[in-house]
Amino acid sequence: MIKPSIPKGTRDFGPVIVRKRNYIFQTIREVFELYGFQPLETPAMENLSTLTGKYGEEGDKLMFKVLNNGEIFAEAEKATNNKELVSALSEKALRYDLTIPFARFVVMNQNDLAMPFKRYQMQPVWRADRPQKGRYREFYQCDADVVGSNSLLNEVELLLIYDTVFSRLGLQGVELRVNNRKILYGLAEVIGKTDLLTDITISIDKLDKIGAEGVRKELSERGLSTEDINTIEQFLAIDGSSEEKLEKLRNLLKDSPTAQKGIEELAFVLNSGYTSYNSIPVVDVTLARGLNYYTGMIVEVKAPATVKMGSIGGGGRYDDLTGLFGLPGISGVGISFGVDRIYDVLEELKLFPETAQQSTRVLFLNLGEANARAAFGHVQALRNKGIAAEIYHESSKMDKQMKYADKRGIPFVAIIGESELQENLVSIKNLQTGQQEKIAAATVADFTF
Amino acid sequence: MIKPSIPKGTRDFGPVIVRKRNYIFQTIREVFELYGFQPLETPAMENLSTLTGKYGEEGDKLMFKVLNNGEIFAEAEKATNNKELVSALSEKALRYDLTIPFARFVVMNQNDLAMPFKRYQMQPVWRADRPQKGRYREFYQCDADVVGSNSLLNEVELLLIYDTVFSRLGLQGVELRVNNRKILYGLAEVIGKTDLLTDITISIDKLDKIGAEGVRKELSERGLSTEDINTIEQFLAIDGSSEEKLEKLRNLLKDSPTAQKGIEELAFVLNSGYTSYNSIPVVDVTLARGLNYYTGMIVEVKAPATVKMGSIGGGGRYDDLTGLFGLPGISGVGISFGVDRIYDVLEELKLFPETAQQSTRVLFLNLGEANARAAFGHVQALRNKGIAAEIYHESSKMDKQMKYADKRGIPFVAIIGESELQENLVSIKNLQTGQQEKIAAATVADFTF
Repeated sequence: MIKPSIPKGTRDFGPVIVRKRNYIFQTIREVFELYGFQPLETPAMENLSTLTGKYGEEGDKLMFKVLNNGEIFAEAEKATNNKELVSALSEKALRYDLTIPFARFVVMNQNDLAMPFKRYQMQPVWRADRPQKGRYREFYQCDADVVGSNSLLNEVELLLIYDTVFSRLGLQGVELRVNNRKILYGLAEVIGKTDLLTDITISIDKLDKIGAEGVRKELSERGLSTEDINTIEQFLAIDGSSEEKLEKLRNLLKDSPTAQKGIEELAFVLNSGYTSYNSIPVVDVTLARGLNYYTGMIVEVKAPATVKMGSIGGGGRYDDLTGLFGLPGISGVGISFGVDRIYDVLEELKLFPETAQQSTRVLFLNLGEANARAAFGHVQALRNKGIAAEIYHESSKMDKQMKYADKRGIPFVAIIGESELQENLVSIKNLQTGQQEKIAAATVADFTF
Repeated sequence: MIKPSIPKGTRDFGPVIVRKRNYIFQTIREVFELYGFQPLETPAMENLSTLTGKYGEEGDKLMFKVLNNGEIFAEAEKATNNKELVSALSEKALRYDLTIPFARFVVMNQNDLAMPFKRYQMQPVWRADRPQKGRYREFYQCDADVVGSNSLLNEVELLLIYDTVFSRLGLQGVELRVNNRKILYGLAEVIGKTDLLTDITISIDKLDKIGAEGVRKELSERGLSTEDINTIEQFLAIDGSSEEKLEKLRNLLKDSPTAQKGIEELAFVLNSGYTSYNSIPVVDVTLARGLNYYTGMIVEVKAPATVKMGSIGGGGRYDDLTGLFGLPGISGVGISFGVDRIYDVLEELKLFPETAQQSTRVLFLNLGEANARAAFGHVQALRNKGIAAEIYHESSKMDKQMKYADKRGIPFVAIIGESELQENLVSIKNLQTGQQEKIAAATVADFTF
């Protein structure tokens, strides 16, 4: 018999991990709901026609396709190359992100939705990336988006959601970095190379990885002149407070009306007069975000500097996402939480509260039939009061039963031995302190487990 | 452009439905936790070697296989028939149920688990069944199982879980029907045809659908004599209270020690002295349950007779499930909730509580910049108090804003017009009663939305 295993890049989540993950999901969900976002769930499989071409060539390659059921042999024989074969054998693929299914849903349900439609979605996605530390083939995305509104109030609220979630998670020192794609467009405009906007954006996006020299080299290879590159470097070198940065941008990009609009959008978001942030977002002109569909504010969340983790969330405004499915002119803005990385950060900083692990509070030992019946009555009474309780499944050695409690991390053990049974008492042992006390059987339901 | 659609047999769940479904999941999860069950999540994809052959031929056919990534053309060319082709192109499949992945998990983690291991799991599974009313290609299963214990206390607790969940859901008239596979085995033993146990079980399982005459015909086709069939019909005709049925079974199957054991197991479960049930399980000798791996008590939950729905849950005891993966001798018992059907039943009987729909409680209208800023302050204060609140995203016609509140089902609208702003008041309108009142701005956070 082959030793059982799971596909590479996938994970089992045992009880301890599920509970911790649920603590994160629940915290985020509560905040989404407070801000009026509504839950959506879409199928794991989408038609290939919905997904193909939406994530670039790379995406088409990394998508997990589902084999058609039934007889496929004859179909396969007709194919003359790999591409034909795949399209002959498969018409569905696994969800690759939550954004495209969301856009598809909006288009299919446009007449029933109250606009603006504020939705959140927390579901797994699948990508055939090469598995490595921190990168999985099945992972959860956790998104909130608003479509059907151009109001910058949405940007403000989404930043507040980040702010609130991380503060509720007890995560201090999180940095919200913001930029605006209109500013990047303006930069390309000022040097007269708007056709190279994507190349410029992609190069800037790599600044962290390849450094200023690397960016310079790449830009030069992509056909930018020394003068162009100098302007871009001037742009990337902008520093100071957020206000100072915006002021410098106003000057440097004064010839681009688009950039000016982007700058004013950022200024509004940073200091709208509507609210104040716990941790104030900072302008980062080097922030580009790889994905192409952004057109307005973009945001990235950096984990506290004390942990080496990088981005734990990001998002931005996009125009016309639903245009892909025939419904043009609907603007949207959204954010995403990187749950796996947030998990690692909370773990490293020991920020999971004990309550996130709360499971069975007390195990009643099973010490013979009459004793077990008495114990079971208490167990049921506690459960009715909302306290998770168990009775050991069989009357076996006390030692074995204690080990079960220990292995499960159950904090209290209740004992009804012969003397307790006769005297109508229950012995309760706190496994953390080792302290043991006898209480009247009638008061068990009032004990603080 | 093609009108977007989703694969047949799959569903989008919009906000209203997600909330109702979550109400069911949450109710079940809470009860599982009270009984000391622990959450487990396994990957959507399993290795084909894990799943193949575990669900019969039918299952192998209905499994959704995932196409290998990369170049598959050369591999495909080598295949000479459908079966070879599928196995050349695919090494993973989507989860088909939660039981086999659970068994696989137990075997892989046997050294780390506290035994008995009580786990629950609520995840989608995928089957390429022909879609029809109430049957989907993606649907959730919701299971609780205990492995590593032969104690009948587990059966008692699982029946109590059913009892508690349905009582918390407000669902009255649910019937828990129980039987024991040892009794069915005993029946085959008494007529000397244990080799035909599966055939007998499958025929009895169809009694509801094909009637007594149909069963008789099928059994005869399967090679049973008239005398055998008479005994089986005597067995199926057993009636009376559960106690009376058990007594009649003791007599009819007196020559089968296995049957006697099954009868005593049922007697214990029905009246263990440990507890009393809200709705007492009833013995149903005609209950067989199709799946083959059961070896002890089996249970099926019937929806209240007032709704035509049939089974909304089921389970039973099985031996040696983990033996499939090389870990023999571990007995288990489990139950499952049919969430889609429970949803339909609660909908039909209008049993979803209003709180299951709770979303945004109050919408603040957006009536100009200064007004909106004042409103936003209230919105944030309410959110900080845990009350979901929204401000309309832009200053537009009041009528349009009211329509949004209405379409979203938001119960209250708060208005800060010019006079309210000057007098430091807020008008609050209850959209259900139409009642409107003005309150001091400082008291908004204390208003009962």
